[in-house]
Amino acid sequence: MIIQLEPKISEQAKAKLLEKINETGFKTTEVRTQFRHCLVGTGSKEFDIRTLGNLPGVADIHRVSDPFKLVSRKWRVEDTLIDLGDGVTLCRGDLAMMAGPCSIESEEQVFSTINHLKANGLRIMRGGVFKPRSSPYSFRGMGLDGLKMWSALAREHGIKIISEVMHTEQIEAMYPYVDIFQVGARNAQNFNLLDALGGVDKPVMLKRGMSGTIEELLQAAEYVFSNGNEKIILCERGIRTYETASRNTFDINAIPILKDKSHLPVVADPSHGIGIRSYVAAVALAAVMAGADGVIVEVHESPEKAASDGAQTLDFEEAGRLYGRMRAAVALRDA
Amino acid sequence: MIIQLEPKISEQAKAKLLEKINETGFKTTEVRTQFRHCLVGTGSKEFDIRTLGNLPGVADIHRVSDPFKLVSRKWRVEDTLIDLGDGVTLCRGDLAMMAGPCSIESEEQVFSTINHLKANGLRIMRGGVFKPRSSPYSFRGMGLDGLKMWSALAREHGIKIISEVMHTEQIEAMYPYVDIFQVGARNAQNFNLLDALGGVDKPVMLKRGMSGTIEELLQAAEYVFSNGNEKIILCERGIRTYETASRNTFDINAIPILKDKSHLPVVADPSHGIGIRSYVAAVALAAVMAGADGVIVEVHESPEKAASDGAQTLDFEEAGRLYGRMRAAVALRDA
Amino acid sequence: MIIQLEPKISEQAKAKLLEKINETGFKTTEVRTQFRHCLVGTGSKEFDIRTLGNLPGVADIHRVSDPFKLVSRKWRVEDTLIDLGDGVTLCRGDLAMMAGPCSIESEEQVFSTINHLKANGLRIMRGGVFKPRSSPYSFRGMGLDGLKMWSALAREHGIKIISEVMHTEQIEAMYPYVDIFQVGARNAQNFNLLDALGGVDKPVMLKRGMSGTIEELLQAAEYVFSNGNEKIILCERGIRTYETASRNTFDINAIPILKDKSHLPVVADPSHGIGIRSYVAAVALAAVMAGADGVIVEVHESPEKAASDGAQTLDFEEAGRLYGRMRAAVALRDA
Amino acid sequence: MIIQLEPKISEQAKAKLLEKINETGFKTTEVRTQFRHCLVGTGSKEFDIRTLGNLPGVADIHRVSDPFKLVSRKWRVEDTLIDLGDGVTLCRGDLAMMAGPCSIESEEQVFSTINHLKANGLRIMRGGVFKPRSSPYSFRGMGLDGLKMWSALAREHGIKIISEVMHTEQIEAMYPYVDIFQVGARNAQNFNLLDALGGVDKPVMLKRGMSGTIEELLQAAEYVFSNGNEKIILCERGIRTYETASRNTFDINAIPILKDKSHLPVVADPSHGIGIRSYVAAVALAAVMAGADGVIVEVHESPEKAASDGAQTLDFEEAGRLYGRMRAAVALRDA
Repeated sequence: MIIQLEPKISEQAKAKLLEKINETGFKTTEVRTQFRHCLVGTGSKEFDIRTLGNLPGVADIHRVSDPFKLVSRKWRVEDTLIDLGDGVTLCRGDLAMMAGPCSIESEEQVFSTINHLKANGLRIMRGGVFKPRSSPYSFRGMGLDGLKMWSALAREHGIKIISEVMHTEQIEAMYPYVDIFQVGARNAQNFNLLDALGGVDKPVMLKRGMSGTIEELLQAAEYVFSNGNEKIILCERGIRTYETASRNTFDINAIPILKDKSHLPVVADPSHGIGIRSYVAAVALAAVMAGADGVIVEVHESPEKAASDGAQTLDFEEAGRLYGRMRAAVALRDA
Repeated sequence: MIIQLEPKISEQAKAKLLEKINETGFKTTEVRTQFRHCLVGTGSKEFDIRTLGNLPGVADIHRVSDPFKLVSRKWRVEDTLIDLGDGVTLCRGDLAMMAGPCSIESEEQVFSTINHLKANGLRIMRGGVFKPRSSPYSFRGMGLDGLKMWSALAREHGIKIISEVMHTEQIEAMYPYVDIFQVGARNAQNFNLLDALGGVDKPVMLKRGMSGTIEELLQAAEYVFSNGNEKIILCERGIRTYETASRNTFDINAIPILKDKSHLPVVADPSHGIGIRSYVAAVALAAVMAGADGVIVEVHESPEKAASDGAQTLDFEEAGRLYGRMRAAVALRDA
Repeated sequence: MIIQLEPKISEQAKAKLLEKINETGFKTTEVRTQFRHCLVGTGSKEFDIRTLGNLPGVADIHRVSDPFKLVSRKWRVEDTLIDLGDGVTLCRGDLAMMAGPCSIESEEQVFSTINHLKANGLRIMRGGVFKPRSSPYSFRGMGLDGLKMWSALAREHGIKIISEVMHTEQIEAMYPYVDIFQVGARNAQNFNLLDALGGVDKPVMLKRGMSGTIEELLQAAEYVFSNGNEKIILCERGIRTYETASRNTFDINAIPILKDKSHLPVVADPSHGIGIRSYVAAVALAAVMAGADGVIVEVHESPEKAASDGAQTLDFEEAGRLYGRMRAAVALRDA
Repeated sequence: MIIQLEPKISEQAKAKLLEKINETGFKTTEVRTQFRHCLVGTGSKEFDIRTLGNLPGVADIHRVSDPFKLVSRKWRVEDTLIDLGDGVTLCRGDLAMMAGPCSIESEEQVFSTINHLKANGLRIMRGGVFKPRSSPYSFRGMGLDGLKMWSALAREHGIKIISEVMHTEQIEAMYPYVDIFQVGARNAQNFNLLDALGGVDKPVMLKRGMSGTIEELLQAAEYVFSNGNEKIILCERGIRTYETASRNTFDINAIPILKDKSHLPVVADPSHGIGIRSYVAAVALAAVMAGADGVIVEVHESPEKAASDGAQTLDFEEAGRLYGRMRAAVALRDA
């Protein structure tokens, strides 16, 4: 149950409302986001929600039986639009393509990637400066200095930045330099990180866990939303299965299911989803056709020289061709 | 290693060739299909294949290091075309759409389905008369009588039939009435059935096992091919994972991988791949975009009245719309 | 619902009973096994089963709401005992250990294995003569001749034989020579094979499918039982998961669950369950401790020379030590 | 490669050593733990390690080709013993049983649990005060106040505490009150948390991820060790598979594999591993028999009244019986 409150609800009216809800046996969480003030009620008793809907201070009330509430399409039918400023948006019908290297490596690399993006009319660059690594002995990224360098160049050229945040302590430091915070698959259920990102007013892209369920992804989004941040993007990046012919099994089913269950935009990550360069384009096109609102792709001027994951990274020419094809696919899909 | 023999190779030349191969430590299997006569050699020793290529009676020789040989694209680069006669083919670029009910139920049902197919320009009807069921107490299909009735109507209207064969003993009985034998997911590694279908001169569609690997699917095809039947279609139908939001996890990655590794046509089964009616079209379109040569879809005049699996079955109107969209997707993909 | 009929129920009484059941909306299957005559009813309507229980010819009646009926412990509380004759049984408390090579290779091999079994007080030898192979080019076993040789030697020494049957056509040929028919993981849902084994009066051991569920294994057993054969053994052999450190993931949970849900004996296959020789004993002991009634283990005089799967095969000394430890574990478990 | 340094290695000798290693192309990480000072080298070039072993300041040198180094048994053959003080240890042969509720709920609950532990001779109590929850609206535990109350009672009775830490910021606050920090399955690859726990001098128990591999678990341990903390316990708690008859699939294979690959103690969590109260004991006994050094079990005076996960929680009587049986199993196993 979601109870939308009027902006100027009096303390008295709120107390009265909470008292009424209390009688129904529902527990409530008060949520204040960039755009709204509401109460989320969880419980299982049946009652006539109109008895609450008529109380002073209540703007609207919705039944939402899903285990996730605020991110559900059951109460918000229209698609959520993510506005990154300067005319860059992520939403249905306007395919956002985020491209860039696995890791930020050097100024030259950033510069050539930005040029590639601009040549293809793209506005969002991906790249890691804090890299989650299975082994403690692997390169863990250029860190904050790398991010500052990248950000300076990107701003100069009107490019927005998405980069992974691994830890609550990084949020404040990264804040001035990123446009979208990315939460990686390994932190998909790092609830403290999700809570903290709820306190930020920049968009957050949540990757599905290595073997996370679709419901768990939506509940992770609920963490961010209920802590105050509505700007959430969902990302399908493949799940772990027994199949070894590909790095992960890209769950194409997740695309239409997420689009149906939630009002949030859905992005596909075909690079990790299949993990083999020559097949990335096929998966990207499939994801778009199935309904993805955006795609995040690993691109590098010379994939064979990339600091990491070159095996799944497209070169500029391959990426350029793919962008064109994806745009055509969106046009066909939404016709 | 595949050694293509000349049609009129003498017994003497063959003996000489086998003797030479024997010296390399390779073991050979002699294969005679509808279209060719060859030796498949398996072994691991390195040697100069030209020493065999120059022998009398040898038409051509190919290294194929894959665990599957005859179905590999390493020796046959062009796509295999399946010709069902009467101008009905299944191959790259000419999207074959096989549609029909889960189970054949009645003459009325067959008749209305055929009309639907014809109205949409489709030529292949699917339907089960022998149904594999988890429980011995479930309806197991109309059997051979149902198939005869169906076949009579289909022939009258120029419609081809694909139906599941579960058992070697059914092959002979079904032979006059089907145009494509389907091997179901539960029989994906029923090697005696695969061997037997190698002796048939009609096409065979192999579904990937419930949790079969891509390599196992190709090896199943190798069984059929090496026993004499080249007319093989591969079918991705979703794999079993931990995700419960969909019936199976449709492995979209399998489509480009199979197309790359093998010359055989690849068909997608979105109905089983996701198992939820309202999402079937999204997965079908994705599969086509990823490279599928055909799609097999469950269609029923009244899905809610279907004898089985109505939850994943499209009605005629939904199916008609999907066919049109898939054709447009193929045109875009192959442009 | 299971309705046990009196041995001499008259046709008239049966007709009357069926009529009554018909009124409840339940569908029935008549089952005649080696030991009993009953009706299995499936349906969902609630009714008072006593109204049927009092009819002439009805010996007993049981509600069984599981998707499997005859193999359920809901109606038969005591454990089923499998009697192989000559004092060899498989049942709770008397740990049956079946040991032998993956493939029967030669008379010498059979002879040395039999000696090993006898030295350890074991009575059942495993071995394959029809081998299911992913590749059509692999060795498929010695076939019927191998079985005959093996059987002659085994009988001479009072050893019982368990061997895999892959195909209905092999049943009759194998019948005189085997004591337990084994159905392999790849045929776990080969329903025609299961039906046919229901017509045999020798025990059948059913392996769980590569990624079969516990419920599917019990339903496979239901196929055999409802077709007339009560002598069924269930076998957990590991399932397919993403973990690559072991060949399969032995599902230890399945042991207590199967023992609880069904009255049938449960056997563990640690050789396939983990697939690595040095760890087989640990898994075998764990399975026994969790409740397994028997264990099937790959043993070879010289595992490194075995025709197949040597990597998971114990040598005689390792096996001998394990047998002793397992017996001690059973004693502790059942104390 | 692990190079153990002499405690008093001079800066000059270290510089010389690093220079020599540099020539081999290996990269090094300097590690200082509670007990040792060493260099971990990663690289792939072959060279004669004796050329380094003879340098001044080098105590010993070991090749370790695994992707994990310090936690590998390749260089440390003997089992690691975790000493919690006051005579409480966790190591091979002395089965540690950690028992307690899912969540700490009240002083009464803590008190009754401590009495239960003492009556059974147990010394370590488990319980959650920070609970990771899929939904943001669920009860997230009593927090630090609950921990303080619990700790006061536990100390009074000589009981050690293991409790989950979810976030680096909680480490310092929890430090005075816990004896073992537990890292949950959802944080199994929260590398910042692992890094931070490397800076603590109290033991850390690492749960395997929801679908983590055995190798990933060992690499997580490597994070803690290489950051300075050698006191690590590994915990198998079941993995996510397609099987729905149990909550997770307890990976019994992991027990002997972890014991073989690593010198660290291995604990089994049968409560989460199967998730069904009546089967917990069978899995616990199996894990012990397979080689587990300890078991962590959910126990509650009245499982049906537990704040969470009562479905998998034993009552005191069941737990008491299990403890006795596990001790007997260890005696048999190690005989």
